[in-house]
Amino acid sequence: MPMFRSKIVDISTRSRLILLNVKDAERLGMTTHDRARLTKDERSAPAIVNTTETFVEPGDVGVFLDTAKELDVVEGDPVTVTLLPPQTSVQYIKKKMRGEKLANHEINNIIKDVVDRSLSEIEITAFIIAQQYHGMGMDEIEGLTRAMVEHGSTIDFQKPVFDKHSLGGIPGNKVSLLIVPIVAAAGLLIPKTSSRAITSPSGTADTMSTLAPVDFSATELKAIANKTNGAIIWGGSLNLAPADDIFIGVEYPLQMDPESQMLASIMAKKLAVGTDYLVLDLPVGREAKVETSEQARRISNQLIELGERLGVRTKCGITYGGQPVGYSVGPALEAKEALLALEGRGPTSLVEKSTALAGLLFELAGKAPRGKGQDFATEILTSGRALAKMREIIEAQGGDPRVKPDEMPIGEKKVQVNAPCDGYITRVSNRAITAIARAAGAPIEKGAGVVFYGKEGHKVKKDETILEIHAERETRLDEAYQMALKLKPITLEGMLLQEIPEL
Amino acid sequence: MPMFRSKIVDISTRSRLILLNVKDAERLGMTTHDRARLTKDERSAPAIVNTTETFVEPGDVGVFLDTAKELDVVEGDPVTVTLLPPQTSVQYIKKKMRGEKLANHEINNIIKDVVDRSLSEIEITAFIIAQQYHGMGMDEIEGLTRAMVEHGSTIDFQKPVFDKHSLGGIPGNKVSLLIVPIVAAAGLLIPKTSSRAITSPSGTADTMSTLAPVDFSATELKAIANKTNGAIIWGGSLNLAPADDIFIGVEYPLQMDPESQMLASIMAKKLAVGTDYLVLDLPVGREAKVETSEQARRISNQLIELGERLGVRTKCGITYGGQPVGYSVGPALEAKEALLALEGRGPTSLVEKSTALAGLLFELAGKAPRGKGQDFATEILTSGRALAKMREIIEAQGGDPRVKPDEMPIGEKKVQVNAPCDGYITRVSNRAITAIARAAGAPIEKGAGVVFYGKEGHKVKKDETILEIHAERETRLDEAYQMALKLKPITLEGMLLQEIPEL
Repeated sequence: MPMFRSKIVDISTRSRLILLNVKDAERLGMTTHDRARLTKDERSAPAIVNTTETFVEPGDVGVFLDTAKELDVVEGDPVTVTLLPPQTSVQYIKKKMRGEKLANHEINNIIKDVVDRSLSEIEITAFIIAQQYHGMGMDEIEGLTRAMVEHGSTIDFQKPVFDKHSLGGIPGNKVSLLIVPIVAAAGLLIPKTSSRAITSPSGTADTMSTLAPVDFSATELKAIANKTNGAIIWGGSLNLAPADDIFIGVEYPLQMDPESQMLASIMAKKLAVGTDYLVLDLPVGREAKVETSEQARRISNQLIELGERLGVRTKCGITYGGQPVGYSVGPALEAKEALLALEGRGPTSLVEKSTALAGLLFELAGKAPRGKGQDFATEILTSGRALAKMREIIEAQGGDPRVKPDEMPIGEKKVQVNAPCDGYITRVSNRAITAIARAAGAPIEKGAGVVFYGKEGHKVKKDETILEIHAERETRLDEAYQMALKLKPITLEGMLLQEIPEL
Repeated sequence: MPMFRSKIVDISTRSRLILLNVKDAERLGMTTHDRARLTKDERSAPAIVNTTETFVEPGDVGVFLDTAKELDVVEGDPVTVTLLPPQTSVQYIKKKMRGEKLANHEINNIIKDVVDRSLSEIEITAFIIAQQYHGMGMDEIEGLTRAMVEHGSTIDFQKPVFDKHSLGGIPGNKVSLLIVPIVAAAGLLIPKTSSRAITSPSGTADTMSTLAPVDFSATELKAIANKTNGAIIWGGSLNLAPADDIFIGVEYPLQMDPESQMLASIMAKKLAVGTDYLVLDLPVGREAKVETSEQARRISNQLIELGERLGVRTKCGITYGGQPVGYSVGPALEAKEALLALEGRGPTSLVEKSTALAGLLFELAGKAPRGKGQDFATEILTSGRALAKMREIIEAQGGDPRVKPDEMPIGEKKVQVNAPCDGYITRVSNRAITAIARAAGAPIEKGAGVVFYGKEGHKVKKDETILEIHAERETRLDEAYQMALKLKPITLEGMLLQEIPEL
């Protein structure tokens, strides 16, 4: 058994790695990307071999931080390194790459190894791309969902759980901040776990974080939900379907999002918190994740069938996603708009969308007859019960329940973009608004973002303000303003789109 | 400009990476896999962002060894880190993933970034898989080949260069050790750069290394070739079409080998040494890289067309690859068999194959009329001129020109595998022989390997030795023997293939 002296490499890595000197690797017949078993006393773990000419001397083995902790290895410890055959799961990934259908145990094996950090980014990328090219049948998607739940933590609330999820991609979509209190105010349990923005100006967790803390353990989440029936927290530290975060890591550089993986990831996160009733918001439109109604219907049908197989009663609401939701984009700006809507001062489009989706949940729950859910939701909203519930939730999460929308900390640096001519607004670009809000500092700088003074169909006059950019810092404001001039996020009928040659 | 204090991370990485503390990354709006520009004084380089919670403190940036050298950064140096837009080449990779044809400048951009270490393994994997799924047209393959040559070193021998290449996959293929001296003895320049084994029991460079050193610079290679007309060296340190080695790195874990990339890689390595005339050996058969004659013909036609476009006159020889070449496998054993063949004591199959391929080169060169090349090659071989030339080459490379085949350092530990019954050999498995020879220690332990006492069609009697395994160490010998019992590398007509239940 080849013995090595451990050298701790104080870096966390996505895969379980060890570093060998090239000379040792050659002697052992190993090369980069081979698998080896690292053993200390009775404990051992498989790891992916990487080689170095300098960092690790012959006779030493570099053990990265997480693996060192796992095996209780400290600097200088003697360990053994032996070659392993290729991971079985790699064979299954290759099978999917050939376009074949995977059995449940094969999918389970892949997910186990993904979560266990036993697969390299190369192999995980291949699995995602194979899904992109070949797709998956419903049996496989079900197996993938169950495997993602199995290899992660779960939470059992011991009563029926309601939930809402949006497919995303539309800036300004703060509907969860209305739906959760509306539903909870009706006595239904809706412990919403949400995400932080990766490419958008504000994830639901970012928006809520301007009103209250959002980072809780499972026990804390249960306590909050038991008290108020509702919660809006960040799901990132709960280890729910953790394979999803790893997949997002490889999807991000290439902006891939294969449908089968998207469906499984959505449902796995929901199943992990024991969701019984689910409403899905599918925004459809130009520059949304889903661009055609046909595609939205297909995805809806798949989600409903997947839900049925998993025991999650699911309804899908197809909504208009061709422009931002409401009139504000960015964490604090969106929280402010949600509070205004809870106070009865919100824009019609936001209120309509929120009550429609909440209504679907009420119909699923039997709280309202079919077709009457939205009325029931609207009643709760207009009666002020949703606002009161939201203040309860904010307090339970450790925020200030007396928060006033007009006192939200909006970025004080601001600049207006005015209409270049008279006309009707024919387009507000999701992608351009996202870019501008992020350039202004969102979601990191909570007060940064964009406010609209008009949206599609509105008539504006030359030199009227159509957009206001907020930032916390002057440099960011300037960057965002330059971007707005370049991207022209709002189009007016009759507006000159480009001058040639450009001035 | 965000300023950081450099912390040198003494590890060589395949991509150019920097490590930021997650807090800093969040503050800068960066996430793992984003691109950032790292700048020290006037120098800067793009790098892929990775994040850590522990290894790098906020305010510090981890700079990996190669990048530190490139920018002349030492521990503690102040540097700036600014977010970059995604690499343009990633857009081109995505274009290929959608199945579209790439323009030459797009391919060139991808290869530049691959060699420049500006792409992550995720992105490079996607490029290889996209080729696997969508293939490439000849225009793209030509562009890919030229780009691979452009982004690497080249050698100009200033006279016509002859070369031979084998598609590989067949253990025991030591024909280069006969072809190079035969061709060089006829006065043609054949400076062969070869590879070390990755998955085989012995690459040509491994085999030659048992006779002479094989690691030379371009200047040394030119000096050797000018003196003797021939050389057999390891191409690995010459930086010829270096993108190939990077692609091999991501192909290896999934055993991918898309045809377009294979064709471009072969030709790029040849073009980089200025090859004018090329003979390609395409072994066809069970468990070879190419399994059907149809596939071999298609690949041949593509290679010939690609050669024409690049100014490399190319002939392809389709050879039998359904079993190992000759009667020995493993570095020293193969070198011994090649020397025996040069002395006129080699097996017919090896001599036939070598002279046939050398003959094709002579026909290309106009040294022999069409159909007479092999006779010309055989004459050089039987006259002893090839042996004399090989001794010259060995000497020029710093080996002992008086080396005797019977004195080669063959592994002294050995074990015989005997025929389990009377019968004709119906099959010798390439894959099983490769596994056994590698288990015995090849190619790292030069004396390890396998010797056959019979091949397909031979008649053997029960208990006659059909295979001998050599190793340098007892433990390795035992491992290889156990593997031979399990894999049954040689099949006899009438032999019991499996007993059920297994004993």
